[in-house]
Amino acid sequence: MAHPITPLSPPLKDELDIVIPTIRNLDFLEQWRPFFQPYHLIIVQDGDPNKTIKVPEGFDYELYNRNDVNKLLGPKASCISFKDSACRCFGFLVSKKKYIFTIDDDCFVAKDPTGQEINALAQHIKNLLTPSTPLFFNTLYDPFREGADFVRGYPFSFREGVPTAISHGLWLNIPDYDAPTQLVKPLERNNSANRYVDAVMTIPKGSLFPMCGMNLGFDRELIGPAMYFGLMGDGQPIGRYDDMWAGWCCKVICDHLNLGVKTGLPYLWHSKASNPFVNLKKEYKGIYWQEEIIPFFQNLTIPKECTTVQKCYIELSKLVKEKLGPIDPYFQTLGDAMVTWIEAWDELNPPKKAEGAASLSAPASAKAEPTPKAK
Amino acid sequence: MAHPITPLSPPLKDELDIVIPTIRNLDFLEQWRPFFQPYHLIIVQDGDPNKTIKVPEGFDYELYNRNDVNKLLGPKASCISFKDSACRCFGFLVSKKKYIFTIDDDCFVAKDPTGQEINALAQHIKNLLTPSTPLFFNTLYDPFREGADFVRGYPFSFREGVPTAISHGLWLNIPDYDAPTQLVKPLERNNSANRYVDAVMTIPKGSLFPMCGMNLGFDRELIGPAMYFGLMGDGQPIGRYDDMWAGWCCKVICDHLNLGVKTGLPYLWHSKASNPFVNLKKEYKGIYWQEEIIPFFQNLTIPKECTTVQKCYIELSKLVKEKLGPIDPYFQTLGDAMVTWIEAWDELNPPKKAEGAASLSAPASAKAEPTPKAK
Repeated sequence: MAHPITPLSPPLKDELDIVIPTIRNLDFLEQWRPFFQPYHLIIVQDGDPNKTIKVPEGFDYELYNRNDVNKLLGPKASCISFKDSACRCFGFLVSKKKYIFTIDDDCFVAKDPTGQEINALAQHIKNLLTPSTPLFFNTLYDPFREGADFVRGYPFSFREGVPTAISHGLWLNIPDYDAPTQLVKPLERNNSANRYVDAVMTIPKGSLFPMCGMNLGFDRELIGPAMYFGLMGDGQPIGRYDDMWAGWCCKVICDHLNLGVKTGLPYLWHSKASNPFVNLKKEYKGIYWQEEIIPFFQNLTIPKECTTVQKCYIELSKLVKEKLGPIDPYFQTLGDAMVTWIEAWDELNPPKKAEGAASLSAPASAKAEPTPKAK
Repeated sequence: MAHPITPLSPPLKDELDIVIPTIRNLDFLEQWRPFFQPYHLIIVQDGDPNKTIKVPEGFDYELYNRNDVNKLLGPKASCISFKDSACRCFGFLVSKKKYIFTIDDDCFVAKDPTGQEINALAQHIKNLLTPSTPLFFNTLYDPFREGADFVRGYPFSFREGVPTAISHGLWLNIPDYDAPTQLVKPLERNNSANRYVDAVMTIPKGSLFPMCGMNLGFDRELIGPAMYFGLMGDGQPIGRYDDMWAGWCCKVICDHLNLGVKTGLPYLWHSKASNPFVNLKKEYKGIYWQEEIIPFFQNLTIPKECTTVQKCYIELSKLVKEKLGPIDPYFQTLGDAMVTWIEAWDELNPPKKAEGAASLSAPASAKAEPTPKAK
């Protein structure tokens, strides 16, 4: 007698949240429905909290607007940016899951060169569940992919790899260019016919990269407390460096803690270029500050006593104030916000080993999480 | 009145030599004829010097067998391996060109996923003539490729890049696996349908890679003296680590001198897997020595006084003897051979600024280059 086949549960269904920052109705989810519907969404509504954001039927979600952020974090809400997609990191803070996938609401399902729709989330999960190889470069790309391996000369003792903390995905159609490049190359497009690179690779230890927040997966338990998108937008002198900031901080901490960062697949379809003139205004301070920030990150050393992400991040906040503070008072404010962020993180995410006790004695804000517009 | 179009000369026609180590007739060149025929070939005949190697009609070449190597280098010929493809570096030594492309004689023209034949040499030339970006990782791969650029957040001061010293190409069909992997996965193949990665990228500064000599281009003026393939084969305790050795040495020197190393395209078709049992015998000492060699290369510092490749390489030879010598007497011999190699290099390649004078007073061996079987 034939047994009915048990349907496979979507991978990590109960261990992953999808975080979406937005200011508009989430019609873009319709296209993602086959891939996202089994998962829980955390929607961070930016801008006017009185606006109603419509979410298509059938999705399981919680939605936070600025009033909710303020209510939940109290004075610590100052570390969450307003009127900037940097607010997405609030979703990372309130999630209770091990994994996060975060995506922008102008990103759609891309097709691979054979015309097949790409399940971006499934690829991020693959990337996160297989090891990274930051200590030595493998010329045939991801050795953990089916049909691939380590090449001749790859040291055997490095082949176990290290746990993967971050999976950074890419974009077809509109590439993620800065304002000057957008202005110079307004028509440049990344098409699956000519610019699809079928590879995932580990970014080597010691090398920084420009992390984009549009299409990003990570392991919250491994690197979550460093995934802070800084102070951008309303009242701040800079924008569009939120994900860059998080990327630089995360990479130096991953290198220090022997964790891996992958980039490459999956692609998604980035539908529209933002206005390059507006972007230039947001970016211009970042563009020249960056010339000092990058050497700072390239040369810093995290003391070996820092054995947790939190300890590394607090140490980093001190170095930011000390070394970048002289550039602009902004970095003093940012250093303080980094500390506030960690305090908020620890409050909402009490240490696991004391979890049983903590859940009895946790501060009110951690227990009474408002999910006012939850379905 | 219409003017006839002047045919384009093949790129770098008079500035590039193709170096081929071999023990057999070079029938494989027939397939490469449309791409290689305009260039000069340097054939290094390994094994029995009395054997006649046939080269297809119409190629411009010089051929050296072991007798020629001994005659040209005298006692310094001891640094050139025998009965091992490591002998190819003799071709690098005697070339007078700025660029080298070296290829194995079991490698054929590959096709890209659209079925088009790949001109591997043309791609290497493109790679070598555009800058590398070792100081920061670009997530959209080679920013100098048409239709690509640096992504948002890439520091502007790094966008000029650094000169490219090495272009490392890959292989379809038989991947370059070590003996244990060959034994475990005898049927694994790299096909253009499923394993073709359409990318070139810079290997970041500080990261070592396994350099394969099968499909390799480099700038002789920038890195030539470090492209020594060590002592392998006849009379040596190790084989199949010749290109790895050259790769480790070149990479640390490129990092020190701010030169770039690229990997990725072009692919060629690697026709046959070598015997894994024979390979295991050649490799086994390398496999465990490597576990000490890699940390040695990862941790070494070349003094800043070393401002030329030669000075770096001599310094490296001292460190090899001092730090790797205790593993096995082989490394003392290798360290000495590295010095001999540089002496031979300098003898055959006198410094450029004194070139006019040098050509009048160069040692006999440098002037009276035998090219006994030259066409």
